[in-house]
Amino acid sequence: MDGAPRRAACRRLQLPLLCLFFQGATAILFAIFVRYNHETDAALWHWGNHSNANNEFYFRYPSFQDVHTMVFLGFGFLMVFLQRYGFSSVGFTFLLAAFALQWSTLVQGFLHSFHGGHIHVGVESMINADFCAGALLISFGAVLGKTGPVQLLLMALLEVVLFGINEFVLLDLLGVKDAGGSMTIHTFGAYFRLVLSWVLYRPRLEKSKHRQSSIYHSDLFAMIGTIFLWIFWPSFNSAPTSLGDTQHRTALNTYYSLTASTLSTFALSALVSGDGRLHMAHIQNAALAGGVMVGTAGEMMLTPFGALAAGFLAGTVSTLGYKFFTPSLESKFKVQDTCGVHNLHGMPGVLGALLGVLVTVLATHEAYGDGLEDVFPLIAEGQRSTTSQAVHQLFGLFVTLAFAFVGGSLVGLLLKLPILDSPPDSQCYEDQIYWEVPGEHEDETQRPLNMEEPDTQA
Amino acid sequence: MDGAPRRAACRRLQLPLLCLFFQGATAILFAIFVRYNHETDAALWHWGNHSNANNEFYFRYPSFQDVHTMVFLGFGFLMVFLQRYGFSSVGFTFLLAAFALQWSTLVQGFLHSFHGGHIHVGVESMINADFCAGALLISFGAVLGKTGPVQLLLMALLEVVLFGINEFVLLDLLGVKDAGGSMTIHTFGAYFRLVLSWVLYRPRLEKSKHRQSSIYHSDLFAMIGTIFLWIFWPSFNSAPTSLGDTQHRTALNTYYSLTASTLSTFALSALVSGDGRLHMAHIQNAALAGGVMVGTAGEMMLTPFGALAAGFLAGTVSTLGYKFFTPSLESKFKVQDTCGVHNLHGMPGVLGALLGVLVTVLATHEAYGDGLEDVFPLIAEGQRSTTSQAVHQLFGLFVTLAFAFVGGSLVGLLLKLPILDSPPDSQCYEDQIYWEVPGEHEDETQRPLNMEEPDTQA
Amino acid sequence: MDGAPRRAACRRLQLPLLCLFFQGATAILFAIFVRYNHETDAALWHWGNHSNANNEFYFRYPSFQDVHTMVFLGFGFLMVFLQRYGFSSVGFTFLLAAFALQWSTLVQGFLHSFHGGHIHVGVESMINADFCAGALLISFGAVLGKTGPVQLLLMALLEVVLFGINEFVLLDLLGVKDAGGSMTIHTFGAYFRLVLSWVLYRPRLEKSKHRQSSIYHSDLFAMIGTIFLWIFWPSFNSAPTSLGDTQHRTALNTYYSLTASTLSTFALSALVSGDGRLHMAHIQNAALAGGVMVGTAGEMMLTPFGALAAGFLAGTVSTLGYKFFTPSLESKFKVQDTCGVHNLHGMPGVLGALLGVLVTVLATHEAYGDGLEDVFPLIAEGQRSTTSQAVHQLFGLFVTLAFAFVGGSLVGLLLKLPILDSPPDSQCYEDQIYWEVPGEHEDETQRPLNMEEPDTQA
Repeated sequence: MDGAPRRAACRRLQLPLLCLFFQGATAILFAIFVRYNHETDAALWHWGNHSNANNEFYFRYPSFQDVHTMVFLGFGFLMVFLQRYGFSSVGFTFLLAAFALQWSTLVQGFLHSFHGGHIHVGVESMINADFCAGALLISFGAVLGKTGPVQLLLMALLEVVLFGINEFVLLDLLGVKDAGGSMTIHTFGAYFRLVLSWVLYRPRLEKSKHRQSSIYHSDLFAMIGTIFLWIFWPSFNSAPTSLGDTQHRTALNTYYSLTASTLSTFALSALVSGDGRLHMAHIQNAALAGGVMVGTAGEMMLTPFGALAAGFLAGTVSTLGYKFFTPSLESKFKVQDTCGVHNLHGMPGVLGALLGVLVTVLATHEAYGDGLEDVFPLIAEGQRSTTSQAVHQLFGLFVTLAFAFVGGSLVGLLLKLPILDSPPDSQCYEDQIYWEVPGEHEDETQRPLNMEEPDTQA
Repeated sequence: MDGAPRRAACRRLQLPLLCLFFQGATAILFAIFVRYNHETDAALWHWGNHSNANNEFYFRYPSFQDVHTMVFLGFGFLMVFLQRYGFSSVGFTFLLAAFALQWSTLVQGFLHSFHGGHIHVGVESMINADFCAGALLISFGAVLGKTGPVQLLLMALLEVVLFGINEFVLLDLLGVKDAGGSMTIHTFGAYFRLVLSWVLYRPRLEKSKHRQSSIYHSDLFAMIGTIFLWIFWPSFNSAPTSLGDTQHRTALNTYYSLTASTLSTFALSALVSGDGRLHMAHIQNAALAGGVMVGTAGEMMLTPFGALAAGFLAGTVSTLGYKFFTPSLESKFKVQDTCGVHNLHGMPGVLGALLGVLVTVLATHEAYGDGLEDVFPLIAEGQRSTTSQAVHQLFGLFVTLAFAFVGGSLVGLLLKLPILDSPPDSQCYEDQIYWEVPGEHEDETQRPLNMEEPDTQA
Repeated sequence: MDGAPRRAACRRLQLPLLCLFFQGATAILFAIFVRYNHETDAALWHWGNHSNANNEFYFRYPSFQDVHTMVFLGFGFLMVFLQRYGFSSVGFTFLLAAFALQWSTLVQGFLHSFHGGHIHVGVESMINADFCAGALLISFGAVLGKTGPVQLLLMALLEVVLFGINEFVLLDLLGVKDAGGSMTIHTFGAYFRLVLSWVLYRPRLEKSKHRQSSIYHSDLFAMIGTIFLWIFWPSFNSAPTSLGDTQHRTALNTYYSLTASTLSTFALSALVSGDGRLHMAHIQNAALAGGVMVGTAGEMMLTPFGALAAGFLAGTVSTLGYKFFTPSLESKFKVQDTCGVHNLHGMPGVLGALLGVLVTVLATHEAYGDGLEDVFPLIAEGQRSTTSQAVHQLFGLFVTLAFAFVGGSLVGLLLKLPILDSPPDSQCYEDQIYWEVPGEHEDETQRPLNMEEPDTQA
C-alpha cells in the first residue's frame, strides 16, 4: 500500500521533468549551433542571386510532406489496432517523433553537415530528421504496450544517436547507397528493438493477453495507418535521392513493388489460415513489405519486373513470418514482438539490403549512362568497381546489424533500471495508467483496475 | 453437410491461387514488355541532357499522390459505411486496386504507348493506371457485399481490358477530350456494374437486410473517405491535362463545382426527408457529384460561374437519385446498387459528358487563344470544327454506354458460373466469411453464423 | 403540442431555403464578377508566352492541397470528439466551409483584387478562400453543439465579410505582415466567437452535460484531425508567402515550433493533472499551438531557436489555459467555449502577434539582405523604419481585437432572433435533431429524445 502512491508520485514527475529537460537542452543546443542554410536564410539566398524556382523547397517539400504524414499518421495509427492502447499508440508516437525531430536535427547535423561551427538546416534536414523518427517508430512497435513514456523517451535519446552514427558510418565512411533506408532505417530499427525486447522479456505477460488483440473498430483505425503508409511509400524512398530521373525511378519502383507485396500477402494470408480466411494483421503489415524491400535498390536500375519480383518475395516472407516465425520468436527466443516488426521491417530490410548488393553487382555503364554519377558516384569517378561497391553494401548490412545488436542490448540494460516507471505485467497494453480515459469512472465496476498490484518488474 | 466443407476447401484455394497466378502472369509480361521511359531511365534521361527541374515528375507527382490517396483511401473508406463489411470494403479495395495498377499498366501500355516492342512507364502511366483502378472501384460499389474476392478479381481482369479499349477508342480513335473521365471513368464504371448487378440480381437479399445499413461509427469512417475524395478531386481531374494554364484551370473549376454540389446536396437532403433532417448517405456521396460532373469540361473554358452551375445541378440530381431513383432501381429494374453508384457516378457522369458537348460547341479561338492547341488540338490544327468535335464528344458517350452495357452483361454471365465462390444470400454484407474477425469466437453465441446453410446462388 | 410541429416544419424549410438562396446569390455574383486570372485563362496565359513551368500553380498547389486537407478534414475531425455530435461536427464543417469558399472568393476579391470590374481567380485566391474558411471553422469550435445549421450559415455570411474587411485593413491599409494569420485568422476567429458565445450564453446547458464529453473512439477520430493539422501546418503558414527562401523558411520555422509545443504540452498535461496522467483534450489541441504562434513571425528571420522557444511557450500557455482558464471562462465570464478555442487560437494568436512585433523590431538589413523586400517591402523601400513597422504590427492586433469584439456582439444579437432554429438546452451536442442517425429507431427505448420539450431559448 505504500509503494503504489510513491510510484504514482514518481510517475507524476518523471515524464514532465524529462520532457522539460529534453526541450530545454535541445533549445540551448539549437541556439548555439543551428542556423538556416543558404536556401532558407534571407540574406544568403538573395546573395546567391538564384531564381526562386530553383529553391530546393520546390523539389523536396511535397515528398517531405508525404514522409511527414507517414511518420506521424501512418506509424501512429498502424499501432492503434490494440483495443485498449489507442491513446498511447498514437499519443506516444506523437511525443517520440516530435522529440526525435529536434534531437536528430542536432545529431545528424553534427555528423553530416557541421560547417564553420554551425549546423545548417532546410528541407533536406527536415526529411532526414523525419527518417530518423521513422526508424524510432518502427522500433516502438516491438515494445508497444510494455514500456512507459519515460522509458520510451530515454530509448529515443539513445537510439537517435546510434541511428545517426550508424548512418554516418554507412553513408559517409563506407560510401554505401541506401536512399530509402532498407538498412539504416528498417534493419536497424527492427533489430535494435528486437534485442531490446529480448532484454526486457516479461515471462508473465499473458496476464494482459486479453488486451493484446484487436477489436473491429481498432482494426479499421489501423487500416488508415496502413493505407497512408502504402500510398506514400514511393515518396519515402524517393525523398532523399538525387533529383530528376533518380527520384522518378525510385518512386516508380516502389509503387510496383508495393502492388506485388499486396497480392502475395493476400494469397499467403488465405493459404496459411486453416479455413481460407484472410487475417487483418497480415494485410495491415505484410502488404507494406514491398516498400521496405526496395529501400536500397529502388534508386538503382532495378527494372519494373525486378520491382514486382522483389515485392512479391517481401510480401510472401513477411506473411509467413507472421504465421510461423512470430509465435516461435516468443516461445523459443523470448522476444515479444507486439507489432510483428521483425516480419515487416526486419526480414524485408535484410532482404532489401541483399537485393541492393545484387543490383549493384549488375550495374553497368551502359545501363546507367551519365546517370551513374547520381546513383554510384564512387564507381562513376573510378574509385570503385561494381564488385567493390557491392562488397561495401554487404559490409554495411553487417555494420548495421552490429550496431543494432550492441545498441539494443546496452539500451535494454539501462531501461531495466528499477527507478524507471514501467507498467506492471497486468497493466500492459492498457491506456488507463497513462491517460485519463473517458468514461472510465462510470465503467469502473466493469473493468476493475487494481493500481496497487505489486509491480512484478522491479 | 457434404457441400459446405467442399465449398470451404474450394474457397480456401480459389483466392490464393488466383492471386498467385495473376501476379505470376503480370510479372512475366512486365519482364518481357515493360521498360523505364526516357524520364525514369538513367541512361536515356542523361543522354537527353535535360535539366532535372524539367523532369515530368515535378509537374505530375504531387497530383499523382492525391489521386493515389483518393483511390486507395477515399474509395476504400467511402464504402466502410456498412456495419459488418468494413474489412472487406477496405481490404478488397486494396487487393483490387493493387492488381489493377499492374494489369492496367500492361493493357493501357499495349494500347497507348507500345513502341519498339516495349511499354514505357513513368509518372503518366502511374496516373493512368490509378485512373483505371478508380473506375474499377466505382464499379465495386454497385456489387459491394454481394460478391466474393474471386469474383471481384475476375471482374477486375475483364473490366480493366474493357476500360482500356473504351478509353483507346475515345481518346485515340475518336479524339474525344475527357481528362477527368466523366465518360471513360464514371459513366463506364457506373453502368458496367449496374448491368452486372442486374445480371447477378438476388431476389432474396432481404435476408441480409439488417447488415445493409450503417452504424454511427461506420458512417464516420465513411466520411473520412468522402472528405479525401472531395479535397483531392481537383487533382484528379487536372492530373492528366496539359501543363500550365490547363492544369491550373481544371483544378479551379473542379474546386468551385464541388462547393456548389455540397450546398445543393445539403439543401436537397433536408428538403426530401420527411422531417427536415439530413441523411448521411447523401452527404457522403452526392456532395462529390460536382467533381464527376466537370470531369470532361473542367479543362475547357467553363468559367467559374459555369463550374458553380454544373456542380449545383450535379448535387441536386444525385441527391434526388438517392431518394427516388435507387428504391425503384431495385423494385422495378431489379438492380441492387449497394452504394448508389448510379447517383454519384452514373447520372453525373452522363451529365458531365453532355456538359462537355455544350462547352465544346461554345469554344472559340478568341476564348482560348493559342491555348486551343492544348485543349482541342484537332480544332486548333484545323482538322475539325467545334461542331464536329462536339459531335465526336457525344458519340464518345454512346460508345462508352455501349461498352458498359455489353461488357457488363458478358462479365455478369461469366460470374454466374456456379464454380465461383459467391456469398449465400444470408451471408451478404458480412465480413466473417472472408476474414478472421476479432472477437468472433467470444460472440459466437450472440451472432450465430450458419456456415452450412444451403447456397441459394448455385 | 402545437409549437413542436410548427418548429419542425420551420426547421424543415429554413436550412434548404437558405442553402438554395446563398448558392443562387453567389452564382449570380460569380457570373457577373468572377473571371479566370492570367494564369488560368487559356488566351491570357498563352498571350504572355510563358513557360508552363512558371505557372504559379506549380509553386502553390501542393501547399494549397495541404491547407485544403487541414480545413476540411483537420478542423472537421478535430471536433468529432463529442460522443453524439460527430455527424454535425464533420457535416456542418463541410457545409460551412463549402459556402465560405464561394463567398470569400467574392468578398476577398472585391477588397483585394477587383480590377476592371472583375475579380480574377487562381490558386492564390483558392488559398485565401481556404484561409477564410479556416477562420470560420476555428470560430465554429466555440459554439459547437449549441447552434443550428441555419444560425451557422448566417454567422458564416457575416463573419466572412468581417474577416475580409479586417484582413483588408491590416494587410492592405496598414501594411501589416501576417502570412500565417496569427492575427487575421486565429485571433480574429477565436475572439469573434468567444464574444458571440458570451452573447448566446445558455445558463442551463448542464442539461446536455452528459453529451459534452468524449468516448474512446471519438477521441481517436479527433486525433486524426489533430495529426493532419499538425503535419500540414508548415504548409498553412507558408502557403501565401513570397516564393523561394521565404516560403522555405516559414515551413521550417513552423515545423520546429510545433515540435516544441508538443513536448511542452505533454509535460504540462502530466504536471497539471492530479495523478500524472495525460489528458487527450490537451494533446489534441495544445500541441498545435506552436503553429498558431508563428503565424506572423514564421516568415521572418525568427531563427530555429526562436521557433523552438515560441512553440514551447505556446504549448505551455495553451495547456494551462485548458486546465485553469476554460473552467473560469464559463463560471466567471459566462462564455461556454466547447472546444477550448481560446486556448488553442486565442492566446497563442495574440502571443503570435506580439512575437511578430518583437521580431520586426529586431529586423536588420544585415540579417535579411535583399530578402528584406520579400518580407518587409515597406522597410526595404525606405517608407518605414523597423520601429514604425513594429508599431503598425501592434496596431493591427488591436484592430483585429476590435473587429472581433464588435463583430461578435452584433452577430450574436442577430442570432438571438427567436425566429431562427436553435437547439433547446436539452438537445445540445446531439446529432439526432439534424441528422437521421442510424439505429436510432431500434434504440429509441434506450435513448429517449423528447422532441416536443418546450424550447427554452425563445
